[in-house]
Amino acid sequence: MPKASEEQRLDLINAQQRLRAEGRSAVVVVTGVDGSGRHRLVNALTHGLDTRGVKVHAWSREDAPGSDRPPLWKYWQGLPAQGQVAVYLDGWYAEPLDRALRGASPELSAIRQLEAQLIGHGSVLVKLWVERPLAEARRDLRKRLKREARDPTLSEQRVLAAEDGAQDQLDALRAHSEGWTMLSGKAPEVAADQAREALIAAMSAPTPPVPVPGHHRNRGAQALAALDMSAALSKKASNKQLPEAQAELARRIWAARARGQSTVVVLEGADAAGKGGVIRRLTDPLDARLFQVVPVAAPSDEERARPYLWRFWRHLPKAGQVLIFDRSWYGRVLVERVEAFCRRDEWQRAFDEINDFEAQLTDHGAVVRKFWLHISPEEQLKRFEDRAETPHKRHKLTDEDWRNREKWDDYRVAVEDAVARTHSAKAPWTLVPANCKRHARLAVIQTLIDALAPD
Amino acid sequence: MPKASEEQRLDLINAQQRLRAEGRSAVVVVTGVDGSGRHRLVNALTHGLDTRGVKVHAWSREDAPGSDRPPLWKYWQGLPAQGQVAVYLDGWYAEPLDRALRGASPELSAIRQLEAQLIGHGSVLVKLWVERPLAEARRDLRKRLKREARDPTLSEQRVLAAEDGAQDQLDALRAHSEGWTMLSGKAPEVAADQAREALIAAMSAPTPPVPVPGHHRNRGAQALAALDMSAALSKKASNKQLPEAQAELARRIWAARARGQSTVVVLEGADAAGKGGVIRRLTDPLDARLFQVVPVAAPSDEERARPYLWRFWRHLPKAGQVLIFDRSWYGRVLVERVEAFCRRDEWQRAFDEINDFEAQLTDHGAVVRKFWLHISPEEQLKRFEDRAETPHKRHKLTDEDWRNREKWDDYRVAVEDAVARTHSAKAPWTLVPANCKRHARLAVIQTLIDALAPD
Repeated sequence: MPKASEEQRLDLINAQQRLRAEGRSAVVVVTGVDGSGRHRLVNALTHGLDTRGVKVHAWSREDAPGSDRPPLWKYWQGLPAQGQVAVYLDGWYAEPLDRALRGASPELSAIRQLEAQLIGHGSVLVKLWVERPLAEARRDLRKRLKREARDPTLSEQRVLAAEDGAQDQLDALRAHSEGWTMLSGKAPEVAADQAREALIAAMSAPTPPVPVPGHHRNRGAQALAALDMSAALSKKASNKQLPEAQAELARRIWAARARGQSTVVVLEGADAAGKGGVIRRLTDPLDARLFQVVPVAAPSDEERARPYLWRFWRHLPKAGQVLIFDRSWYGRVLVERVEAFCRRDEWQRAFDEINDFEAQLTDHGAVVRKFWLHISPEEQLKRFEDRAETPHKRHKLTDEDWRNREKWDDYRVAVEDAVARTHSAKAPWTLVPANCKRHARLAVIQTLIDALAPD
Repeated sequence: MPKASEEQRLDLINAQQRLRAEGRSAVVVVTGVDGSGRHRLVNALTHGLDTRGVKVHAWSREDAPGSDRPPLWKYWQGLPAQGQVAVYLDGWYAEPLDRALRGASPELSAIRQLEAQLIGHGSVLVKLWVERPLAEARRDLRKRLKREARDPTLSEQRVLAAEDGAQDQLDALRAHSEGWTMLSGKAPEVAADQAREALIAAMSAPTPPVPVPGHHRNRGAQALAALDMSAALSKKASNKQLPEAQAELARRIWAARARGQSTVVVLEGADAAGKGGVIRRLTDPLDARLFQVVPVAAPSDEERARPYLWRFWRHLPKAGQVLIFDRSWYGRVLVERVEAFCRRDEWQRAFDEINDFEAQLTDHGAVVRKFWLHISPEEQLKRFEDRAETPHKRHKLTDEDWRNREKWDDYRVAVEDAVARTHSAKAPWTLVPANCKRHARLAVIQTLIDALAPD
């Protein structure tokens, strides 16, 4: 294996220590076709690093976890914490590479988003492409398989059976994804040396300024003002309609499960808007194994150490489940924006990040529905007072809740923005007048019934 | 759904807040056969709890994650952090229950260990069994399936097709596993009420004293003293034998992968014993997707919040991988024991916990090999001095390393104990004289070759 020089090792160790001191992480992607020498390069690259801070993610295509989740899920799982280095063999280029080998052009938008989020989080991203003409890679691969007396893996089979147009598609893939350091697969020693230098340089560079997206405040958006806040449902009507709707929803959820289709429900709303009550009516008629409720509170240290959406990616269940978020990733553009818990550029970037995240869910077949339960300030005050007076509800009421009331208008602007910028045909918002709890509960259930196919 | 009374809700909330304040967690297992009303009970149980602190784990048998890992892996993944309540539908009783329904008797030792570790960690464990005669459960189940117009799930099929002896086996299962609160499946309201009372009582009870296992110091153990510390390998011999052994190991690892067999390698040794060098020689000839190195350092807050072994369970890959631990769960009975980082009862219990953990790995088909790289104090001193003088090695040497030297004899006793109490035919220790690095590296590789079938 090509070893690092004494000087390089010292540079690597120093760069790694600086990374740690700055609380940043590094992500290294090593790709190229099978037979180009990627594995040797990965080994060479980690030589000289303090291995306690390094994790290599190298699945073969057939072993990669989570094929029953959106494709990028498995890469999100492995994102490094602060001070750590994650080396991905192929990583999120595995699928585009496979497509290229089959002569097809790749879909890169989700990948670009992931890389942008890494950089936005302050991570060091190093992309290494080990270049080897397909014909030569094939020849070496055949030799290796013979020597190791084994069958080719799935990805090796793809290289051996690569289509005629594959080389062109590989070149196109590289050209359309940015920031590659090109290494020669013919000269492993040189490639290893260059790879280490690239890593040292990237880890030693100052944190680049984060690009701030242009912000278009939707001043015209008045979706909330247009709501009919007098919408209400009588107790009698609710007693009849709610159980019927619940039963119908349960039937459709069983049917979705049989199809292997997931449902992702996002519940947002001001304090005391009635999210808990809605969740209870949603879940009461459901078999406990059909759904999961994810209450979103303060992040753990493992969560804080990674790009924002990591804490949501990690909860994604296998296909066929109902996942209900009691507050959600919209916290970034609601509470975190209003309370300045994150930087301005962070919440401004979040709209695109969220749209991309939800598109990955729906592209994978999930039904995504987002609800804003809207109450008036007067109704909220009434509910707060009720909470203060009811012993078993008192824990729900905090000083923060009272403080949040003072920012009612800021939240209103944030909600209008969020809805305007993240509403889409496949992941639509439903704004629910929620001064009447019975009305709100039925409205949410009815919307979900309409979203799910009857069988 | 049977609702909690105002008074009960207040009690639940208070108990949950106390749990949080004490930094403890609660684990609730709800079991019984399908058709007994478990789902309704789970819903009723969570009613009244602050849902932000509750997670329900309810997989159907066919959806349960990780069938390519030891059976208990999935339950370990879901263990709650401090202040949290985890509700498991069936949980680790799912498999024993299925066995009982097929008329077979269950294997409970791993389950007992898991529960003991939860209690040892200070968690509240509540076990609820919803009792319903099989004949009645079957009848209700058929009705429900008809109403919901769907096919039975796998576990429902098992109930419908239960063997004649099933009821007896269910009774035996309950009798042989301890601490059940029995609830009547015929009276859902009463059952829900009793379940909530049981939870309140358990969460309100003072932390029970942790049972301390009798400790048998192996004063006679002199395995280390018996080692031939002069064992050495010439450079010439190593240059010939090491590459051959590496190639043979790679061949056997490919073969193990084809069989879907995992290999778990534990490397322990004093500071500067040469663990890193051994790992490099193990992994250099391997394709990066065949192995994972897990360096074990200080636990994160998510790890500290759960029973000790959680941080190792979470790393278990799918079957067919080589997993190399650079330090390991033996930290509990080595550094944590010697430095008093854990309580005496904690490291004393750890021997059984470790034996059980490793037995679950080997029962699932994994090859487990544990190595202690043994160097003399004089050799260590020499290596420390070398590290101090070599710029790129200096980061490896800390003040702690020098301090640890003063406790050489304590570590020696701890190692002898660990080896004596956790050596087994399926998960054996190999004590490797490591004053000569070349000898140690080849010895480890040779041991692994012998452990793996040739094809």
